[in-house]
Amino acid sequence: MSSGRNDLEIGYDVPAAIGDAVEDIQTPALVIDLDAFERNVERMRCHIESMDVRLRAHAKTHKSADIALFQIAKGGACGVCCQKVSEAEALVRGGVRDILVSNQVTGPLKVERLARLAGRARIIVCVDDATNVAALSKAAQSVGSTIEVLVEIDCGARRCGVQPGVPAADLARCVAATPNLVFSGLQAYHGSAQHIVDPVERRAAIASAIEMTRDTVRLLAEHGLECAIVGGAGTGSFDMEGCSGVYNELQCGSYIFMDADYGRVRDDDGGMVGGFEHALFVLTSVMSKTAPTRAVCDAGLKALAVDSGLPLIFDRPGIAYAAANDEHGKIDDPGNRLAINDRLLLVPGHCDPTCNLHDWFVGVRNGKVETLWPVTARGKLY
Amino acid sequence: MSSGRNDLEIGYDVPAAIGDAVEDIQTPALVIDLDAFERNVERMRCHIESMDVRLRAHAKTHKSADIALFQIAKGGACGVCCQKVSEAEALVRGGVRDILVSNQVTGPLKVERLARLAGRARIIVCVDDATNVAALSKAAQSVGSTIEVLVEIDCGARRCGVQPGVPAADLARCVAATPNLVFSGLQAYHGSAQHIVDPVERRAAIASAIEMTRDTVRLLAEHGLECAIVGGAGTGSFDMEGCSGVYNELQCGSYIFMDADYGRVRDDDGGMVGGFEHALFVLTSVMSKTAPTRAVCDAGLKALAVDSGLPLIFDRPGIAYAAANDEHGKIDDPGNRLAINDRLLLVPGHCDPTCNLHDWFVGVRNGKVETLWPVTARGKLY
Repeated sequence: MSSGRNDLEIGYDVPAAIGDAVEDIQTPALVIDLDAFERNVERMRCHIESMDVRLRAHAKTHKSADIALFQIAKGGACGVCCQKVSEAEALVRGGVRDILVSNQVTGPLKVERLARLAGRARIIVCVDDATNVAALSKAAQSVGSTIEVLVEIDCGARRCGVQPGVPAADLARCVAATPNLVFSGLQAYHGSAQHIVDPVERRAAIASAIEMTRDTVRLLAEHGLECAIVGGAGTGSFDMEGCSGVYNELQCGSYIFMDADYGRVRDDDGGMVGGFEHALFVLTSVMSKTAPTRAVCDAGLKALAVDSGLPLIFDRPGIAYAAANDEHGKIDDPGNRLAINDRLLLVPGHCDPTCNLHDWFVGVRNGKVETLWPVTARGKLY
Repeated sequence: MSSGRNDLEIGYDVPAAIGDAVEDIQTPALVIDLDAFERNVERMRCHIESMDVRLRAHAKTHKSADIALFQIAKGGACGVCCQKVSEAEALVRGGVRDILVSNQVTGPLKVERLARLAGRARIIVCVDDATNVAALSKAAQSVGSTIEVLVEIDCGARRCGVQPGVPAADLARCVAATPNLVFSGLQAYHGSAQHIVDPVERRAAIASAIEMTRDTVRLLAEHGLECAIVGGAGTGSFDMEGCSGVYNELQCGSYIFMDADYGRVRDDDGGMVGGFEHALFVLTSVMSKTAPTRAVCDAGLKALAVDSGLPLIFDRPGIAYAAANDEHGKIDDPGNRLAINDRLLLVPGHCDPTCNLHDWFVGVRNGKVETLWPVTARGKLY
């Protein structure tokens, strides 16, 4: 057993130390299989290269400056996306210099913070409201920075974004005419379509988004507005937008980890989408075994997000994660195979909110802890 | 607008500063209505006093040393419960000196950490396995500490715990005979019964748990084993265990905050259980309004736990939180009443995992930020 780095203090604030054996990681812990992770990063780099588009990897998945910098250095990413100003601030502190906040930033102090941040790094933001455009401009003027702006269109998700076509063109002209803002293109992300399991249905949903986006790009060109960025797409559909001839920046995030929900999304060949593999796990231990067909593990709602379904147990047939309580997972163990302190790897149902529960990624290779990456922007919600 | 405490740095790591107006809190933020919170604490103190039992408030709800110390100083609590060794470590660092880890602690290094912690504070832990009893004893002997032990019985939750009666008595004798451990009583918590909405059905479920516990206490007494602690109960049922004549330490947690799920649990008079009121909110802002009957707010799955249902919108009839995405909440706005930057108070569906998403409690009174309490044990899962 490792004596750990925390022995001299009251408390254990990191679930492992570099060099520890995997068996000594304190559970539950968020574990990356570094080999699988690096294969996923390389797979996406090859996909992107073959389609001749850019990758702007979505950092909302991992919230880690270390992973963002790895995606930029080794994975073909031109920069990253995130969703909140505080996330962008944390990533800039961590050394990332090209960030799209793929979301609206509207609160007065948030707008001011974003404008300041644009003096430190390339900052791009989405808009769907003319009053917000004026506020961004005023803040950027006051600190002397320039903010790049994408007009977000609602291409099927029915969430944020103006309607494609004329409303988008009107807002784009407004941006282009406003001081200290640069009109940089369109944000056209169809989030819900990413998770459609069947590739034919998924392609139909994305085809509709592509057509709306194509028409809007054409209309903008007629008004003399070129889109340096036409952004969108995710792990479920990136090949469709990437081959469309319309999109030029893909915003995939989950491909590095592949949660259980994305694991159900199929490619035409019936395999996991993009050829990616599970690389993120919650390592858990059995801590109670008082019934022959039931075990209880130490990873529940505070260690795993269950909004997209329960976790899968990796590589252990015959047992199943059956229910998540606050601090416990109930495991069906019909063959009475489990014992106290047995360890299991859980594939989380949804990786993004699962990562946001943990303070550390424990990167493992060959049975040893090789990296400890903080979840840099964990809890950066505002 | 407040200039905030973070202006000199890149980034905003606290959602508000003490003295800020409520309107200037960065959203989403976890907000406590301090008046309502203090009324809830006082209500429970009165309940406990009238029943002549102890309150061992459950800190898994809030994970805050500040709140734990307030419950002990002002709310009649003899100490607190928590669920993990790392939570207990964080609370001891924060000054709490009487802690029940109301859970099994089985991993070798965790057992060692618990034994060390027992040299710094009163530490009580639950067991349901004889091998675990031996491990706890060995660790306590090696560091020269004493750990108090409760035998956990399964009184209806079908999760952890040995069967009531003879199996519990056997394990209790094992504990009592083991060096550096003290047999302190029984843990008999019926978690799922807490959330039964109808008081008659809830009372029936708890009555069954009380009978099992009563029989086991009697059997232990026949073996000469007195239970200094008979612990269990929660916010939904505390008056039932409290008046049973069997339980003497109640482990209520959610009463301080009262989430939407507990808000549905009724007392006999049809009111909210225990007379408690909502005191915890996620403050959110509208950040997109591009359709007449829909708004989008900035609190989604990373700001709110949805395992026990979607949040309710507090004190704003005519609108409803309809869906949670990672970073967005979709709001049904049939009357087209909302505008960008409007602020809403959301009552979270489930308070415990919601608190675990945030780094700070922002305590407000009379329209101002009065306290900033860190979520001391946030993410302390191991």
